[in-house]
Amino acid sequence: MSIVVTGVTRTEMGLVDRLGEFGVATIHEAQGQTGLLAPRLRPIYRPVRVSGNALTCEVNPGDNLSIHIAVDQAQPGDILVVTPTSPCDDGFFGELLATSFAARGVRGLVIDGGVRDVADLTAMNFPVWSAVINAKGTIKENPGDVQVTIDCAGVRIRPGDVIVADDDGVVVVRREDAAQVIEASRIREESEVEKRMHLSSGELGIDLTGMRDRFGEIGVRFVQQED
Amino acid sequence: MSIVVTGVTRTEMGLVDRLGEFGVATIHEAQGQTGLLAPRLRPIYRPVRVSGNALTCEVNPGDNLSIHIAVDQAQPGDILVVTPTSPCDDGFFGELLATSFAARGVRGLVIDGGVRDVADLTAMNFPVWSAVINAKGTIKENPGDVQVTIDCAGVRIRPGDVIVADDDGVVVVRREDAAQVIEASRIREESEVEKRMHLSSGELGIDLTGMRDRFGEIGVRFVQQED
Amino acid sequence: MSIVVTGVTRTEMGLVDRLGEFGVATIHEAQGQTGLLAPRLRPIYRPVRVSGNALTCEVNPGDNLSIHIAVDQAQPGDILVVTPTSPCDDGFFGELLATSFAARGVRGLVIDGGVRDVADLTAMNFPVWSAVINAKGTIKENPGDVQVTIDCAGVRIRPGDVIVADDDGVVVVRREDAAQVIEASRIREESEVEKRMHLSSGELGIDLTGMRDRFGEIGVRFVQQED
Amino acid sequence: MSIVVTGVTRTEMGLVDRLGEFGVATIHEAQGQTGLLAPRLRPIYRPVRVSGNALTCEVNPGDNLSIHIAVDQAQPGDILVVTPTSPCDDGFFGELLATSFAARGVRGLVIDGGVRDVADLTAMNFPVWSAVINAKGTIKENPGDVQVTIDCAGVRIRPGDVIVADDDGVVVVRREDAAQVIEASRIREESEVEKRMHLSSGELGIDLTGMRDRFGEIGVRFVQQED
Amino acid sequence: MSIVVTGVTRTEMGLVDRLGEFGVATIHEAQGQTGLLAPRLRPIYRPVRVSGNALTCEVNPGDNLSIHIAVDQAQPGDILVVTPTSPCDDGFFGELLATSFAARGVRGLVIDGGVRDVADLTAMNFPVWSAVINAKGTIKENPGDVQVTIDCAGVRIRPGDVIVADDDGVVVVRREDAAQVIEASRIREESEVEKRMHLSSGELGIDLTGMRDRFGEIGVRFVQQED
Amino acid sequence: MSIVVTGVTRTEMGLVDRLGEFGVATIHEAQGQTGLLAPRLRPIYRPVRVSGNALTCEVNPGDNLSIHIAVDQAQPGDILVVTPTSPCDDGFFGELLATSFAARGVRGLVIDGGVRDVADLTAMNFPVWSAVINAKGTIKENPGDVQVTIDCAGVRIRPGDVIVADDDGVVVVRREDAAQVIEASRIREESEVEKRMHLSSGELGIDLTGMRDRFGEIGVRFVQQED
Repeated sequence: MSIVVTGVTRTEMGLVDRLGEFGVATIHEAQGQTGLLAPRLRPIYRPVRVSGNALTCEVNPGDNLSIHIAVDQAQPGDILVVTPTSPCDDGFFGELLATSFAARGVRGLVIDGGVRDVADLTAMNFPVWSAVINAKGTIKENPGDVQVTIDCAGVRIRPGDVIVADDDGVVVVRREDAAQVIEASRIREESEVEKRMHLSSGELGIDLTGMRDRFGEIGVRFVQQED
Repeated sequence: MSIVVTGVTRTEMGLVDRLGEFGVATIHEAQGQTGLLAPRLRPIYRPVRVSGNALTCEVNPGDNLSIHIAVDQAQPGDILVVTPTSPCDDGFFGELLATSFAARGVRGLVIDGGVRDVADLTAMNFPVWSAVINAKGTIKENPGDVQVTIDCAGVRIRPGDVIVADDDGVVVVRREDAAQVIEASRIREESEVEKRMHLSSGELGIDLTGMRDRFGEIGVRFVQQED
Repeated sequence: MSIVVTGVTRTEMGLVDRLGEFGVATIHEAQGQTGLLAPRLRPIYRPVRVSGNALTCEVNPGDNLSIHIAVDQAQPGDILVVTPTSPCDDGFFGELLATSFAARGVRGLVIDGGVRDVADLTAMNFPVWSAVINAKGTIKENPGDVQVTIDCAGVRIRPGDVIVADDDGVVVVRREDAAQVIEASRIREESEVEKRMHLSSGELGIDLTGMRDRFGEIGVRFVQQED
Repeated sequence: MSIVVTGVTRTEMGLVDRLGEFGVATIHEAQGQTGLLAPRLRPIYRPVRVSGNALTCEVNPGDNLSIHIAVDQAQPGDILVVTPTSPCDDGFFGELLATSFAARGVRGLVIDGGVRDVADLTAMNFPVWSAVINAKGTIKENPGDVQVTIDCAGVRIRPGDVIVADDDGVVVVRREDAAQVIEASRIREESEVEKRMHLSSGELGIDLTGMRDRFGEIGVRFVQQED
Repeated sequence: MSIVVTGVTRTEMGLVDRLGEFGVATIHEAQGQTGLLAPRLRPIYRPVRVSGNALTCEVNPGDNLSIHIAVDQAQPGDILVVTPTSPCDDGFFGELLATSFAARGVRGLVIDGGVRDVADLTAMNFPVWSAVINAKGTIKENPGDVQVTIDCAGVRIRPGDVIVADDDGVVVVRREDAAQVIEASRIREESEVEKRMHLSSGELGIDLTGMRDRFGEIGVRFVQQED
Repeated sequence: MSIVVTGVTRTEMGLVDRLGEFGVATIHEAQGQTGLLAPRLRPIYRPVRVSGNALTCEVNPGDNLSIHIAVDQAQPGDILVVTPTSPCDDGFFGELLATSFAARGVRGLVIDGGVRDVADLTAMNFPVWSAVINAKGTIKENPGDVQVTIDCAGVRIRPGDVIVADDDGVVVVRREDAAQVIEASRIREESEVEKRMHLSSGELGIDLTGMRDRFGEIGVRFVQQED
């Protein structure tokens, strides 16, 4: 049995695209160190960065039928997010599915499982973050749910939440937080511009933040190396 | 003690080269989802694709003597396939051995263990699929068998079987199946050309295969998202 | 509490730079198969090679304060070497810290933990060998020791020892052994030049080393393949 | 910073105790294959079974301060559930903390991290499910949140949800589902009593369920072994 | 689709039972260090030892239908051996299936996957060697093959080969080798009885085997500890 | 080549035995959280506790010859500590070697590799801490060093240092620190006796340590659960 939720509200593409201007590390910090998927998910090529609305999909181990069903729910600007109901490294997704999703304007794939045809996917510029690369395909018999709330690589993702992914990994931003996370990310980046200038000129972070003055309190003790 | 089987019958190079025109995922499917080595074996550079006759070699953990013995059995068009008798991540193979095998016309290495000198191997265009990259070398004291049937990364490989390897991983085709797998792969690729055309124009797999008509039977249920 | 050892004696940069001319595998062999860090440490980009004086730093899990303290101890030609007191994959280091260390002339980072901002680090040509890539940052509250002897990825490293790192991994050379390891590496490389010439012309290692004559003694037995 | 939510509503102990009469596998099935924590969590002794209200606690890696804070929130019938904000195998919990929690009537511990003093904990009959056994203790400096919704070993757990744990692992039952899951578990167990009787007398599941009649449809084909 | 091979020839029970008198380590040595399954397979209780004829069964990931089909092929003295077509840790087998197999005289289970109801299985004295303990059950939709040659935990097993399993792990003995392996194991055990007597009286293995005389040749060098 | 250091000074047995009265966790804390071996080393039976002088032994992967050589260096009260030069899970040690070491008064084994015959070792009360249980034996061809300083499971161990091992794991105490660690452990245990009394009567650690008074400073904030 499989539930497919239709008519899912997306995050407005203006917000999605502005989130895509920030790195995953910046967004993760800007929203209070939340929403980061486990680092076992790695991009199949680098450098890469993309943002999009989560099109969520649960698959049974060794079975990618619900991905085929999910195409029908795809909208331009979506990113497909797939999680198996049990850990499974099979290659659930390859070049033919990518062709289908790309034709619908889907921007990439995040999967806590395997992917195959990575040379083709790279040539197509279809970015994928996966737990493994595996030529082993699947059957298409028992579908999981599509466009429901899922747990993927340790993080809760709802359809229509925003996915941002780059060389560092994958982060999800809740739809209702998108505007605020953009603002917090912008502030963070601006403060980093100035900090970077100081640091590149040789000033130290411990001086900029006043940390050096707290060395006594924290118990930092300097000792001359013995001969 | 070490057995070295000589005079091993290879698969005809015409078949080997035609198999090399297909991707690993295609071949794996074409022969009924068999023969795929475990995905822990990854290429040291990408993109890459190669095919060749398996030149098989068992090594003792931490000892690469039988690889040195195997060179003498090499023929142009072979791919060296190495498996340790116990799991071992040592760097069994490096640039000097690659020079030796390349001089004999060997096309690459598949090893369920470690490899080193990967910068040199990349510069030489000598492709390697290995479980790990590890600078730690081995001793050369106790040889394993050469050109015998081995189990490598979960798959049985006989000397003279065909190895095809690419960005997705490594697959073995039994010598007696080569011609038939070429034909099955060709048919599969042709059907994919057409399918790809449909999919890239926005048609859906569930419609092309008639899967959508079976949604009721399988239990796919569509639900409108609540506000 | 945190000890910071100051005035650490470095290895002379002439020696450091000459060590950097050799590959990690060569040095590891030249010093008797010692000093190699575990192969889970991988470079974030390739090809790459660097050498430098170890600037050592212990961090508490999830806390990078001592890295901030370590900058103040950095000298041109150093390589930062970081180990957590318990295994931890957090992203202890990113682009801002790299900017700071680069401004001090530090040549790279070796860390048995996570790193982030790898696209920026790659663009900066700041080489990193890490156990994982992870956007998750840390707090800055409890420092570990700086410039003390540490165990990193299974190897003991003292501040001022020489680190050499390349595509194959990371090796440490003890300061007092540097000159001798350079000489041993040079001899090894020279002998390999000649060996490579022989091998590339098709001669076999088992003949060059006289190993073939010992086949009987070792128990190598040749058997003709049966039909 | 740390949020401690007080006055958390528990599930009624009558329901908690009735849930504890069922095995984890039964409950997991009875609630539609949901709520099972990852199998890396194993009991420190067997056989064992316990149920209780989740007393949730987030810890920073290498720091168990919030567990000390959590004791103050404990009520008889609770089970402490601890998750680190980053994966960390340190021994966050030992015999002294167990003494403290036991004195408050807490029935056990579930932790996606390490535990120590397991001989003492076993002697005390204080059951623990942990990812690892590790003598390495932690600091007590930076607390995480207490009695908030957490993700532990891949599953969302709210304070006051019911935890059931036995030799097979750990499952969570949402507070509002407790009564219904008891009923579904009871029905499941009853049906199993009858099934067990049939099976132990030699009848087959494929006959009891009518599966054998579907063999043709599914494609089960019987072949006599060749000589 | 699923092939079920019927009428499989078993190894004679007299041989099976005599093999069961030896430990797994002894048998593994006696047949030339072959046939040992990967050590990730561990018994659910100890001490334990059992031998039986392999009743082989392939399952699809997350689906145990072929185990239900396999019961019908079971004979007294069999041991069920299950391998998934892709790595999968689900709990494919529990107490009800054990009841059914036990009623048919099956002596235990070897599975390169998960098992559940381990408390019940222990109470039933139904021994299991599995890769993991996992309460998560499976569906019963797509069967794999039954009583065909399989690769389980790295080893090829044919139906009717002999399985011996104990606290150390699992080994397979080919049907045609059973008599000879019994004899080789017996000889090995007898020689060990004598060796054990010598060793327990304080004599050393290096003296019994004459190894000490070869110390010079091997390069063993004794050095007095410095003050 | 193999160095065997003879005439190694042990720690006085009185100190060794008094250290054995403390748990591993206590000792680890008492010496400043140092000396703990990685938690992948687990005892083959529980409960168990032992202390002894380290008899150190390096083995080549897949080769246990140096263990045979080490017996000759054994003294009553020693614990054999074995580390392979490359990670290797083979069963380097079994019942015959245990008989030999037990005859010499050796109290147990710590090995960062595999062990076999665990049923026999358990029956003999010969305690072992190993990374894996594996029936696969080794060859006896190339010895490593005996009674030299080794790195085992991440920790430096010198012959004659004290090993203490129990259900929680394995810790090493440097010979020169033994007396002082005994005293520090004693003090720690005494303070715990009192603390345990308070805690078991329901007092809280945060009150005993005054931590509750620092809640404001640390940023602990209490919030009433909303309806």
